[in-house]
Amino acid sequence: MANRIGKYTIKMRNKPSIKGFAAVAGKKEAEGPLGSKFDITFDDTSLGETSWEKAESKLQSEAVTKALRKAEISSADVDYIFAGDLLNQCISSTFALRSLGVPFLGQYGACSTMAQTLALASIIVEAEIARNCIAVTSSHFCAAERQFRFPLEYGGQRTPTAQWTVTGSGCAIVGEHKGDLSIAHVTIGRIIDLGIKDANNMGAAMAPAAADTLSNFFKDTSSSPSDYDLIITGDLGQVGGDLLKQLLKKDGIILDKNYNDCGMMIYNSKEQDTHAGGSGCGCSASVLCSDILTRMKKHELNNIIFMATGALMSPTSSQQGESIPGIAHLINIKNM
Amino acid sequence: MANRIGKYTIKMRNKPSIKGFAAVAGKKEAEGPLGSKFDITFDDTSLGETSWEKAESKLQSEAVTKALRKAEISSADVDYIFAGDLLNQCISSTFALRSLGVPFLGQYGACSTMAQTLALASIIVEAEIARNCIAVTSSHFCAAERQFRFPLEYGGQRTPTAQWTVTGSGCAIVGEHKGDLSIAHVTIGRIIDLGIKDANNMGAAMAPAAADTLSNFFKDTSSSPSDYDLIITGDLGQVGGDLLKQLLKKDGIILDKNYNDCGMMIYNSKEQDTHAGGSGCGCSASVLCSDILTRMKKHELNNIIFMATGALMSPTSSQQGESIPGIAHLINIKNM
Repeated sequence: MANRIGKYTIKMRNKPSIKGFAAVAGKKEAEGPLGSKFDITFDDTSLGETSWEKAESKLQSEAVTKALRKAEISSADVDYIFAGDLLNQCISSTFALRSLGVPFLGQYGACSTMAQTLALASIIVEAEIARNCIAVTSSHFCAAERQFRFPLEYGGQRTPTAQWTVTGSGCAIVGEHKGDLSIAHVTIGRIIDLGIKDANNMGAAMAPAAADTLSNFFKDTSSSPSDYDLIITGDLGQVGGDLLKQLLKKDGIILDKNYNDCGMMIYNSKEQDTHAGGSGCGCSASVLCSDILTRMKKHELNNIIFMATGALMSPTSSQQGESIPGIAHLINIKNM
Repeated sequence: MANRIGKYTIKMRNKPSIKGFAAVAGKKEAEGPLGSKFDITFDDTSLGETSWEKAESKLQSEAVTKALRKAEISSADVDYIFAGDLLNQCISSTFALRSLGVPFLGQYGACSTMAQTLALASIIVEAEIARNCIAVTSSHFCAAERQFRFPLEYGGQRTPTAQWTVTGSGCAIVGEHKGDLSIAHVTIGRIIDLGIKDANNMGAAMAPAAADTLSNFFKDTSSSPSDYDLIITGDLGQVGGDLLKQLLKKDGIILDKNYNDCGMMIYNSKEQDTHAGGSGCGCSASVLCSDILTRMKKHELNNIIFMATGALMSPTSSQQGESIPGIAHLINIKNM
């Protein structure tokens, strides 16, 4: 097991790296603090399509097209696509990418999917089985609301712990080593379910999984939070982020100034009325593939932990009284 | 790219192998031609659970438990689980496997998922990143009917091209090389969409993808159908299987006596009124992990192609007038 360190962590020796990345987003995201960082933003969140689901597909295909262009490769240079989203049967991904003609592996990790696609893309490049892989995910506020909660027309009231699904997509092209933005380590998470049943408080449901994966990673790599320029979670939001800090404190791990959450970065929660922060596959994907990776490229950040979390439930499981299992996958990205 | 041959095929050099396998199924499957081959069958298709979704989860956990026992390993010896199913947000898998404490990677390839989980499990063992991986999928007739078509109580009439979702689950444990049941090659499929829109004719929607993957594999490996003891598709059924033969014939590839389809094997279609045959993730999984692998273990079969196909649509995409994209992933299993 040349690539394993500790119990859960994969150490990349061939150092697959992110050769190109792009993020696209909707109107509300364009008005947020990261608005100027996205490659493309759309004032019309229907993107000119006839349904929210088709609009979400277009977010993904736009992100992929832009990322390929920035990586200066064509789809013919890509061996595999790892893609996923939140919609039933992952239709945003399959319809977005069907015309590319590239072998396709659909992933489902709820909002952890961006880390999952990046992890598998990195592993398959590390193993010298692929030259380049696409890792991409998306979400769309309007498509998610009507599938998971209420149609927009209903005008449902939101609880203070509720989060706002990001309309956006992020895509990274993972290829052979060339120095910057290298994938140094990957830690795949276990499903953790502490019995949270409140579907309006996903942060609380996901925080225990985040704590588990992060503490496994620190143990496996004999490192601590202060070794990293930034530790960023996907969409724990205000509530989940606070819980993560509390849970880690019990293990003697202190998350401090270098911790942030994509869901807390993407909106001005108070002014934009997004309550506990942004969420959705597109949240972590679009923040990573805009602001974060751009700051790494400029060497403002050189060693980061990106960990996306997912709530592995469905409206049906919640209606049947089930609790919400959480998961978190971790990627350590370094400038070498 | 030491592991690539041709454009689409991965050649396994460390030869990951299937160390254990198990299949469980429901009452109708128990009454079919393979009834005696399953490890466990359930007369009560609720499995004593309070919902069809929970029953499907139990099918998966039973299959995993049995496969681990037959492989003579415990969950502590497993590094990753690759699992997926047809239900929205893949809840059969996440709820079935949450208590195992093993890093989890959710897969979505519709009915191609068994081949996809096997492919990724094999790749990660081949790359010496994992010792053992679980590959598992499931489906349940009653859960699938109410999600994709009509609740059972409605008593909807079925078209002659319609297929019958298998109540069952199959699990394979992929580990380091030990000779028999080795994974020799893997070919990951591309999404192919020729514009079929009839959601009651999945076989037709998936056949073009099956033809694409199979002909890519033969080209990459310079082999032909007669080199294999058995070529088996997942759930093309009668209609899709006939179309696959026609499509391949155009490329000069003749599928003949050594071709079969899991969906055609699992029921006596006429007596059991299952129309064009069985379908669902659990169809290919339960047939592979019972009859097929058992015949390989007895050396009645020594070199087979297992190719599972998936229809990458959702009820929403069909209602919005979209066509049905298909995909097919291929695994070549050999006794070495």
